[in-house]
Amino acid sequence: MKVFITGGGGFLGYRLALQLLERGTLAGPDGKPAAITQIKLFDAAFPPNPDPRLLCIKGDIGELEIIEAELDRDTASVFHLAAIVSAHAEAEFDLGYRVNLDGTRNLLEACRDMDTPPRVVFASSLAVYGGKLPPVVDDSITPAPQTSYGTQKVIGEYLVNDYSRKGMIDGRSLRLPTIVVRPGKPNLASTSFASGMFREPLNGVACEVPVEESTEMWILSPGKVLDAFIHAHELPASDWGTNRALALPGITFSVGEGVEALRRIAGADVAKRVVFKRDERINKMVRSFPGKFKTDRALGMGFQADKDIGSIIEDYIRSEGIRV
Amino acid sequence: MKVFITGGGGFLGYRLALQLLERGTLAGPDGKPAAITQIKLFDAAFPPNPDPRLLCIKGDIGELEIIEAELDRDTASVFHLAAIVSAHAEAEFDLGYRVNLDGTRNLLEACRDMDTPPRVVFASSLAVYGGKLPPVVDDSITPAPQTSYGTQKVIGEYLVNDYSRKGMIDGRSLRLPTIVVRPGKPNLASTSFASGMFREPLNGVACEVPVEESTEMWILSPGKVLDAFIHAHELPASDWGTNRALALPGITFSVGEGVEALRRIAGADVAKRVVFKRDERINKMVRSFPGKFKTDRALGMGFQADKDIGSIIEDYIRSEGIRV
Repeated sequence: MKVFITGGGGFLGYRLALQLLERGTLAGPDGKPAAITQIKLFDAAFPPNPDPRLLCIKGDIGELEIIEAELDRDTASVFHLAAIVSAHAEAEFDLGYRVNLDGTRNLLEACRDMDTPPRVVFASSLAVYGGKLPPVVDDSITPAPQTSYGTQKVIGEYLVNDYSRKGMIDGRSLRLPTIVVRPGKPNLASTSFASGMFREPLNGVACEVPVEESTEMWILSPGKVLDAFIHAHELPASDWGTNRALALPGITFSVGEGVEALRRIAGADVAKRVVFKRDERINKMVRSFPGKFKTDRALGMGFQADKDIGSIIEDYIRSEGIRV
Repeated sequence: MKVFITGGGGFLGYRLALQLLERGTLAGPDGKPAAITQIKLFDAAFPPNPDPRLLCIKGDIGELEIIEAELDRDTASVFHLAAIVSAHAEAEFDLGYRVNLDGTRNLLEACRDMDTPPRVVFASSLAVYGGKLPPVVDDSITPAPQTSYGTQKVIGEYLVNDYSRKGMIDGRSLRLPTIVVRPGKPNLASTSFASGMFREPLNGVACEVPVEESTEMWILSPGKVLDAFIHAHELPASDWGTNRALALPGITFSVGEGVEALRRIAGADVAKRVVFKRDERINKMVRSFPGKFKTDRALGMGFQADKDIGSIIEDYIRSEGIRV
């Protein structure tokens, strides 16, 4: 069976591809494990020297013709991770709508032409929530995004629901927590600092944190989110019912607690490289995202969170081979 | 000030235009009443011999260039009523998305080019609700449409919210109850029978009702919905806050009660022209829409419902000059 990953050149998409190579199978259309015969990655850019077992296609998801040409008719599984991230979509309104809304629609349209309706796992975001929220967000809360990114994501969820209801795809949308710790460089997400505040100091570099120390965030590690993508894919359609979107489990950490954990694990010299320097534009955006969830539905379906911020930092140190 | 009405050739759009002609003013950008200098109607078709004071433009809202060309830069008020109705959008998936989603987006894009952000009143629908619902739907319930029409409407609401948040428009979305009694001919809405079951018998014609007698519907009269469009426009932006969408007040009637009211008002000979003939496709769609609401937010903002089904029927008889 063939697998197609949009945003496959990005951090999560590329790691997902590697994990699928290692795993070797995914649930086929009949629900039984089927051997993966091809993994095609679609993105605007790729890491240098990608694994030769992966098919890397450069292209613009905003162009329907390109997606239709590249998505083979016998593709059984689609992971849709391509996106313009939050602060970027807020700054570039047209680009955000082009990639995050038109791109999602183009992909779903291309999926209508397939031999059998593919399973589609869509990376949505906790940014769908916003406005006046209770202290703990549960599955009953109505998304009220306060960013264009969150708006585009919730629209994508409704499209995934409708195309699923019509039997054109078999979709599953995951509202991702903020992913911590992302390796590599800062990106244009408003939450980029939440990885940078661990990654940069551990690499001997200072990191500016643009939000208040008390800011609470709902986070998940890269390893757990990859597990969630695959778990979402493997669950039978009947477990999803008519509502194909859910908020993923995560853990709450305040930025101040993060600094404390870093100090405990890597020492005071490392932790003091975290510098608080408020940026009101980012602070406002991040504080519009909820920091605490009660994810009963996802937990009941077998999705899992990390233990605590300390274990996330320790995992990162281990996986990157950093000496502390 | 100039007014632009999409779907202006339709029953509600055209009546709204006539009502605005009579009224003569609307709140201008500064909130104070301003004289209406032009009313432009945009639609695919118009009634014969429209009022010469109205500017009727035939066009396809799915074409961005046409909307951009026709929406004058100095337009202050936009009423967006154009839509492919529920059962039609369900049967013609592509057409529904083209008009209801692309059309809405095209209109909002055209609004970005205006001299000042126009007030935009968007006709959404109770069809945004669906799935597992409590007996009474209140403002806290998350839309979970079970039709493409409802999906397109809720997406439109999120777009109106985001464009408003960005200051590109000053939007207001109204989730319309089923409008009863619509004059004229049946249309392709799944709820068309809810008008037909009064209109046809009063005109001496039989009407087939495709749903169960016990089916409850949430309805509003044409007069009250026109009042709601204008009231939504006149309220200051501060009354709407960040959530620009709300469910309109209405009344609940069961189809069986409707037949009873018709019998009481127009006699048994008229009422017996209502024939129950189940159509499972329509029955399922209509029963996915909620029949009872608690519309606290709208009531608090001054929106009003009809008294009861009897008064709606009597108003219709009077306004159409029917002898009973």
